[in-house]
Amino acid sequence: MAKYFPAHFQVPGFLAAGIAAGIKKNGNPDLALIYAPHPAVAAGVFTTNRVKAAPVILSKERLKGGYAQAVLINSGCANACTGLRGLKDAQELAKSVSALLKIDPTKVLLASTGVIGRPLPVTQIKKKLPLLISALSADGLAEVARAIVTTDTFPKAEKVKGKVNGQEITLAGIAKGAGMISPQMATMLSFVLTDAWISPRALKKCLQEQVKETFNLVIIDGDMSTNDTVLVLANGQAQNKMIEPNTTGYKKFSELLRQILYALAEKIARDGEGATKLVKITVEGARSVAEAQKVARTVACSPLVKTAFFGADANWGRIMCAAGYAGVNIDPNKIDIFFDKVQIVGRGQGKGSVAEKKATEIMKKKEYEVRLNLHQGRERAFVLTTDLSYDYVKINAAYRT
Amino acid sequence: MAKYFPAHFQVPGFLAAGIAAGIKKNGNPDLALIYAPHPAVAAGVFTTNRVKAAPVILSKERLKGGYAQAVLINSGCANACTGLRGLKDAQELAKSVSALLKIDPTKVLLASTGVIGRPLPVTQIKKKLPLLISALSADGLAEVARAIVTTDTFPKAEKVKGKVNGQEITLAGIAKGAGMISPQMATMLSFVLTDAWISPRALKKCLQEQVKETFNLVIIDGDMSTNDTVLVLANGQAQNKMIEPNTTGYKKFSELLRQILYALAEKIARDGEGATKLVKITVEGARSVAEAQKVARTVACSPLVKTAFFGADANWGRIMCAAGYAGVNIDPNKIDIFFDKVQIVGRGQGKGSVAEKKATEIMKKKEYEVRLNLHQGRERAFVLTTDLSYDYVKINAAYRT
Repeated sequence: MAKYFPAHFQVPGFLAAGIAAGIKKNGNPDLALIYAPHPAVAAGVFTTNRVKAAPVILSKERLKGGYAQAVLINSGCANACTGLRGLKDAQELAKSVSALLKIDPTKVLLASTGVIGRPLPVTQIKKKLPLLISALSADGLAEVARAIVTTDTFPKAEKVKGKVNGQEITLAGIAKGAGMISPQMATMLSFVLTDAWISPRALKKCLQEQVKETFNLVIIDGDMSTNDTVLVLANGQAQNKMIEPNTTGYKKFSELLRQILYALAEKIARDGEGATKLVKITVEGARSVAEAQKVARTVACSPLVKTAFFGADANWGRIMCAAGYAGVNIDPNKIDIFFDKVQIVGRGQGKGSVAEKKATEIMKKKEYEVRLNLHQGRERAFVLTTDLSYDYVKINAAYRT
Repeated sequence: MAKYFPAHFQVPGFLAAGIAAGIKKNGNPDLALIYAPHPAVAAGVFTTNRVKAAPVILSKERLKGGYAQAVLINSGCANACTGLRGLKDAQELAKSVSALLKIDPTKVLLASTGVIGRPLPVTQIKKKLPLLISALSADGLAEVARAIVTTDTFPKAEKVKGKVNGQEITLAGIAKGAGMISPQMATMLSFVLTDAWISPRALKKCLQEQVKETFNLVIIDGDMSTNDTVLVLANGQAQNKMIEPNTTGYKKFSELLRQILYALAEKIARDGEGATKLVKITVEGARSVAEAQKVARTVACSPLVKTAFFGADANWGRIMCAAGYAGVNIDPNKIDIFFDKVQIVGRGQGKGSVAEKKATEIMKKKEYEVRLNLHQGRERAFVLTTDLSYDYVKINAAYRT
């Protein structure tokens, strides 16, 4: 598994661990802890689904203070649609963690992923907490990455370094994705640790801005989960001058955060359930970014477009068709469509069989771009998506069995 | 094929025919004509996709007069995204039909379905028109039903009779569906003939109202096509007192039209591409019909819900989850979910493994209902949908090859 992790995959001042606690039936790692011995500045972005899992409700509330010291994460059970009991279970686990670590209970955040509607095995998890805490180490983040996966086929980890306000800072991030990925996120967990010194207000603003440019651009199946959580913890150990909004340091930090989140988002897309292709859908020449996004997302969500990607069929009619029902006042007779550099549609009409053959060759690649020019304005947007394969159906028809 | 058609599948005063014209590669029937020797009152409902096929643009325009005498229909080529040439091709075919039938060219309507972006083989079709016209007969509607299919596994035909304004009237309808079916319709063609006497204004109003209650409730994959067309032709041969809006006769006619359109819609759903299940998604206890529809459609469009239907997995968490991102301000802790009569969720939480087992048994049936009660109001709505199977992917990954 070493190939999945950057060298020295750690951030000064953070400890982490991941173990198997028996929540998953197959005995794989399923319980993880991230711990900051000194309270860290913390910010989060969560699912916008009306149905929110208990850990989302709890963590969202606790982040209002702007600081955190520990994040307990489990896979195998989402603790969603579990009502009052789910909330009590989450609170009880946070309390146990805080007691064992001897920290303020409100500084413990939670995240869960897995099957919806089943209660957490609280007693079992509590029994494993001492083992989890004793496993905490400076390079335990890789274990966390392994313990949070569900249908992912590989753990996702990224690390970037850069100079901000006179000091070199490190950001290390992990993520799990695979199914239910949609803009506004979907069962997708991601945790980024950094030793930067940044104000709570700046971190919150920066995370919200950068999630829009990264995770929210990934569409696997258009479903949006109950548990999506992105958390960033910053412990200030780099001793840079504190980063505040609208400064040069903020811009530099934003760029580093964007880099790490985008790299993780791309890995999530590449590992979409059953995905055999990674396709970037770019829409340009739109009147507004919002319209460009609407068209890109509608094309990316179309099951007919996605099955054509799977079959490497340059069926551009389906792309035109999806663009047509995106709810944007497009003019079909102005649209150009390109597969990488090959133009397949000009002013709404096919460019012929030679172009289609070239496009078919491009579609045999693992990764390519589909670009639509609406010729209505100067704005653009893109999303990352995947094909819809037999394996997507297989994975999701039998997920709980 | 006889089993698919009602006895005496014809309507007094209409002639029809369907033949193979070589548009489809496999030599199956692909060209059809419906002909009313006397001009019939006509109304249509068309795709709301911004990308409209040439025959849709042409027929929509011609229906403004409220009368028609012939409908030329082809499968195998959608004549969509074909620009000016597509429109000219459509006009030329209409002109040829009118010349051969010696009728007003503006009284000829067109409908096409098939691959997008390829031009119609106009010369070839024109050569076959005399043969098509010589094949016209009173019971030719069954041949039309056979000639308009694409990936359908069976032709779809329905007939109803009823007394309206003192006379027995007949309605006979055919449809093709299979892929790209979504609310607001998708490549879906349907043609209904009746001998009722009805004013153009009444027929238009009635059709618009009843399409909402029938075809627009069917969701296969959420894609909306460029070619959807529903046409009704009424020739008045029943000699009933003319039907006008807001009369008892109008109500009776509406009910007959609803019956036939609903029966056709249900057949389209049952024959959804790769579908192995027909699921009715009902949402009740909503604040408005619009909110009930929004939730029902979001649940019906979720690939995760649809793959769970395919796998007969009573994964109600996915249903809760989809309801949560429908864009309706639901309260998750109030929701009840039933599979037929089995309650599987009460106030947002699972009713346990016994209920799940019972629900799993229901999901093994070919047809069942999933009912959500939001407990927020008194309104309700439903949609008909299908599962997402291996075969859906197979059919659509290789459609053009």
